This record gives sequence, structure tokens and C-alpha cells, in this order.
Amino acid sequence: MRDVAIVGVGLSRWGEVWDASLRTLWTEAALAALDDAGLDRVDSITVGSMTPGLFVGQEHLGALLADELGMAGVPATRVESACASGGVALKVGFAEVAAGLADIVLVTGVEKMTDVSGDECTAALAAAADAELEVFYGATFPGLYAMMARAHMARWGTTREQLAMVAVKNHRHGALNPHAQYRQEITVKDVIEAAKVAEPLTILDCSPITDGAAALVLAEIGVARKLAKGRPIVRVAGVGQATDRIALQSRADLTTLPATTLAAQRAFKMADKGPADVHLAEVHDCFTIAEIVVVEALGLCKPGEGGCQASSGRTALGGELPVNPSGGLKSKGHPVGATGVAQAVEITTQLRGAAGKRQVKGARVGLTQNMGGTGASTVVHILEVAS
Amino acid sequence: MRDVAIVGVGLSRWGEVWDASLRTLWTEAALAALDDAGLDRVDSITVGSMTPGLFVGQEHLGALLADELGMAGVPATRVESACASGGVALKVGFAEVAAGLADIVLVTGVEKMTDVSGDECTAALAAAADAELEVFYGATFPGLYAMMARAHMARWGTTREQLAMVAVKNHRHGALNPHAQYRQEITVKDVIEAAKVAEPLTILDCSPITDGAAALVLAEIGVARKLAKGRPIVRVAGVGQATDRIALQSRADLTTLPATTLAAQRAFKMADKGPADVHLAEVHDCFTIAEIVVVEALGLCKPGEGGCQASSGRTALGGELPVNPSGGLKSKGHPVGATGVAQAVEITTQLRGAAGKRQVKGARVGLTQNMGGTGASTVVHILEVAS
Repeated sequence: MRDVAIVGVGLSRWGEVWDASLRTLWTEAALAALDDAGLDRVDSITVGSMTPGLFVGQEHLGALLADELGMAGVPATRVESACASGGVALKVGFAEVAAGLADIVLVTGVEKMTDVSGDECTAALAAAADAELEVFYGATFPGLYAMMARAHMARWGTTREQLAMVAVKNHRHGALNPHAQYRQEITVKDVIEAAKVAEPLTILDCSPITDGAAALVLAEIGVARKLAKGRPIVRVAGVGQATDRIALQSRADLTTLPATTLAAQRAFKMADKGPADVHLAEVHDCFTIAEIVVVEALGLCKPGEGGCQASSGRTALGGELPVNPSGGLKSKGHPVGATGVAQAVEITTQLRGAAGKRQVKGARVGLTQNMGGTGASTVVHILEVAS
Repeated sequence: MRDVAIVGVGLSRWGEVWDASLRTLWTEAALAALDDAGLDRVDSITVGSMTPGLFVGQEHLGALLADELGMAGVPATRVESACASGGVALKVGFAEVAAGLADIVLVTGVEKMTDVSGDECTAALAAAADAELEVFYGATFPGLYAMMARAHMARWGTTREQLAMVAVKNHRHGALNPHAQYRQEITVKDVIEAAKVAEPLTILDCSPITDGAAALVLAEIGVARKLAKGRPIVRVAGVGQATDRIALQSRADLTTLPATTLAAQRAFKMADKGPADVHLAEVHDCFTIAEIVVVEALGLCKPGEGGCQASSGRTALGGELPVNPSGGLKSKGHPVGATGVAQAVEITTQLRGAAGKRQVKGARVGLTQNMGGTGASTVVHILEVAS
């Protein structure tokens, strides 16, 4: 298997971007990544997007976006795994370079979520759940994650304040990120007293609806060394993907995420590393409870101790193991198909030492964890500074 | 790059399958392919599907279907490239095995199209065209392909009867295929006098709306040899993918398909073969004009001579180069996300010498061509009997 590195990163504007369409946002991110890499051609393109059909009535994004970029002719593949679409787009691009089918791949993710009403948006996102076993009965994602939160509180004594501290930490990080959708700091009181969405979760426990795109340029490592321009080479050391029962009701335990554990084990094995080797992580905090369960599932703390990771300061910038230095989905925003790619953009920026005020000092190994639904699909990547 | 072979094939029921859902049809095909391979486990799953969000309100098919198959845990990736989704699912699975990320991959395609009204179905399929430059102005695929037909007739003198002969030939082939949706033979007169859809195309120039799924099992060639059970080993010798301008109006010429030509060149180069080496082909005859333009674009005949390929008998069973021995999309049916996988199922069956009444004698090299939209995305695979 050939070695693969990340040689370019880019983000579009993120937020409620009323004046740009899906294709415009995507092109902003793609051009930024190509500029960053110093390239004007690629061998292949992957596009992670959850449901452009339901959001903007457009499928066939591979061909559409290659054309929009002036690259008609280049092979282009859209991949989907609900909110893990971006992470899977990175894996599919990695496989093409690793196999030798391509030397340079533009890996992208995009979602345009604000062109529909709130109800339509909720319905589109619900397509990530089981239509027959969950959606038919009225389940939505805030409700499903609220059940996970209740179960975690009952089993491990996780508190309402600990949930809130995840949001407080991630907003503090996001306030340092010029790309974040919400750059204001918030307090535990703000979170607890905000409008309730699904008990115990309030609106400030939930990641927002976001328009945005993210892009990476992958290259075979020999090609990457020629393009480095003195910057550190960021290598994709480990790739792990896994699934789980899709309906929450089908799982043995609401307080664990087996697909995240399995994906992490696969990625760590491939990278010949373990949780103790990780200096920072970008994880899928679609709701505050998600970050708590995910850090446990990744092995970054013991089972049941997820709740105190943010409240103790361990996972804050300046702590032992910063989690979501970008602000995470909660503060940076969550254009669902773009999120997994944006996580790798942040880790690459950190490993290059170019993250400015939110820089994690001495970061040489980082992890991304991106999941779909209530964790039924998960992708984990381990990135490291190549020696 | 590791060598990859096809060790199992399977199809679900195809047609208007009122009594089965997407997941049921998919599972029928997946289990058939696993039975054929003699396996009960795989390392990874890919799912080609165009727009399950618009057809049945369900995304996240990777996790959903891995779970349905009792394989929760296994990595599963949905890919989409409009009607080329199945072909791209094969390419993505190929890359995983070729790279060494997996030894055995279940490659699948599925579409459940008859759970919506005719108008909703037309709208869902139109999501493969450019929403801003085509669909907004009322363009639908029969209309777009009708323009290609008119242009081909004007430029090359292709006749109405030659268009009809493609349908006549493919129905004759499909009548020999127990899996085909329409197994009755038709005449040139039937085609020309059928209900008009978009001048010059009638309903019998158009592939039908179909529910169905198809599956393949890919394996690293060493693994494949152990599973062969005395059957010929079918190797994936070449993989080519390409895109084109998505909107028909953006193209320089309505009578050619540059993405098909480019994809074929890439696949032939990888396989170290050319058009003259091909013994049979399954191509994307979504409309009769499509087969005519495609055989030209693949280099299987000279430009302008596509029209006389079916009418002369050259591409019929018993002719020099049988095209669509399965009956093609026209007679076998066209569950859009499944079609590219089903094409490889047919070629594999032919190369094994197991195609019964529609067997192409002495077939050792076959080609599949699967395209999305009006040809804006295309995937070509070259399959051969491994020595």
C-alpha cells in the first residue's frame, strides 16, 4: 500500500450563507485547497454530501462539481454515509492513492442546508435514521441523542453541568477560530437555561444548521515531499471505518458507541499507535452528549469518565488532550457532508503549527472521528507529521 | 496494485416489485452473491444508489444495509453518480481490494423506484441533470436524449428504424434472460408506433422504471483462486472513470460522449487491451440512441456507424460483437443504482460460460459501460478470464 499525505486544505465560508449556492461554496473550498497545495490539476475528486437531493434537489454532485471547477473529464465520485459522508470521502480518496489509481486526489465535503424550511431540514436529516423503525414513529436526532444522554446520566452519574461544559469548552475554542459559525463564548448557565429541544438537551447542546464546504488535497508521499515548500508533511497513518445497528432501539447499550470503538481500533492498528499517542482530536460533537460518549469509545478516557473530561479541563486547549480545538461541530458549525473533511483540515493545520491562537503546542499526532446517525457509521483517521 | 477478481454474483427480483422494500431487494441480491461465492463474511461493503432519499426517504444505506444483512460492524459505503452509481460502487470496492484495505468486498447496487408516483419518479431522476441550467427550464431525460437522437440523425443519417432496431435486438436478448423485466420480443413497427415520449423517441425506445438490486463479491486474486471451485476466475483487468460537462447545452457536440471515450481509454490502458480485444459488452442503453452513441464512443465501431450496428446484426447474439446480451437496460430493466453492478454480473456469468441460452461462445474478455445523466459521468470496466 502506498503512503498518502495531505498537501492542501481549504474551507468555504461557514454559516447561514444566503448569497451562495451549493456549487459556489464547494468551489470556494476546492480552490482554497488547490491554492494551498500549489496545484491546478488533480487525478480524481471525491465529494462527501449527505442529501443534496432532499436539501437542494440536486444529485450527481461528482460530475456537477468537477464541471463547476473547470475540471470536466476528471473522475469524480460522491459518497454518502449521513453525517459521516466527509470522513468516508477521505477514506475513498485515500484508497485511490494507496492503490495507485491516482497520485493526487481532491477530497471534499459539502452541504447546503438553509435553502429549506426548518421542518424540511429536520426531515432531511432524519433520513439518516431508520425510516421504518425510527422515523415512522416520530424519532428525530435531538430526541435520540437525548435518550443517550439520559442513559449515560443514569448509568455513570454524568451531570447536566458536565454536558453543558462540552458546549462551553467548544465555544471557547471556536471564539479563537476565524472560520467558526458561532464565535461567542457561553456559560454553563446559558446552556442549561436555553430553550429546551429534547430533555435534557437545550438548543445550546445542539450543533447548528450550517452551509459550508471543506476540501483536502491528498498526494502519494513522494509527490507530497516535492510539494512541501518547507512545511511539515502530514501523513494519513491510519484509516478505520465501521458500522453498527442503525436503529438506536436495536442496540444492546445506549451509553456506548461500538462502531466508534471498532473504527478506532482499526485505525490505530494500521497506524501502529494507540490512544496514548494522540496529541489532539477532532470528534463528532453533534450534541454535547456525543463528545462525552465518543471520547470514551475512542479510548481517550475510561468508560464512564467522559463527563468529566471537559469539566476538568483535560480536553480544553492548554489541557492534556485538547478535543475539538476548532470549536467542533457545536461552535464551528456542522454542514453535515463537509464535517468529516473539515476535521482533517483542522488537524492538518494544527500539525503544520499554523493554527494561530488555537494552536496545540507540540502536536505531532492527531485523530479525527466522524459519525453518521446515532453512530451507526463511523470513520476514524490518524494523521501524523511524517519524519 | 493487487489483482482483483469477481468470485460471486447475485440479482434480486427485477420489475415492479410491489411486495418488497429497498432493504428486502438488496438483501436478496447480497445473499445470492454470497451464496455464489461460498462466503458468509466480507471485509467491506459498497452500495451504489442514486437517490433513495427522493425515492423512499432513506439515506445512510451503508449502515442500514450492513445491519439488515446481519453484518453490523463491517465498513459500508454508499456511492452515488446518478445512473452510474453501480459502476462507481464497483470501482470503489476495487480500490479497497487493490490497495490492501480489504481482501473481500461485497459490491452492490439498488434502487426502489415504484414507491412514488410517475411525476415524483421523473423529478427524482431529473436530479441527475443540472438543476439550474436544465431542470429549471423543464428538461427531462427523455427530452435530452431525444435531442441527442435528432442531432445524430442529422449529422450521420441515422434512421428511425435503426433506433428501433436497438430495442428489438435487446428485447430479443432479454427474452432469453430469466431475470429480465420484459421478456417479450417486439418489432420495429411496435417501437415506431408506440406512444410518443419525446420525438423521435417512443415509450419502446426508453428503458423502464424498475425495482431491483445486484451484487458482486470481489476478492484479492489469491483469495479468489482458493474460492474458485473449478470455475474460471474472472479478473477485473481495467477500470476507467471520467466526467463531462453536466448540462447537455454546455457540450461542443451532442452526437458524442467524451466521458465514455475517456473512461474507455483509461480502462483499456490499464488492461493493456483495445476495443478489438473485446468479445462482448454490456452498455448503458437507457434510450435506444444511447447504445448507438456509446458503441461509437467506446471505439467498438467507427464514428457515425453506431446506427447500423444493431440493424446489421453485428451486435446481436450470434454476431461479431454481442452488445447487451442480458437484454440491456431496455429489456432487463433499469433500477438506476443497480444497473452498473448488474452489467458486471452479466459479463461475469458470460465469462464463466454460465449464461445458458444467451451465452456468447468463446467469451474471454468483456466490457461494461455505465453512465449517469446524459453521459456526464461514466465508468468502464474490462473483465477477463484470468489465465
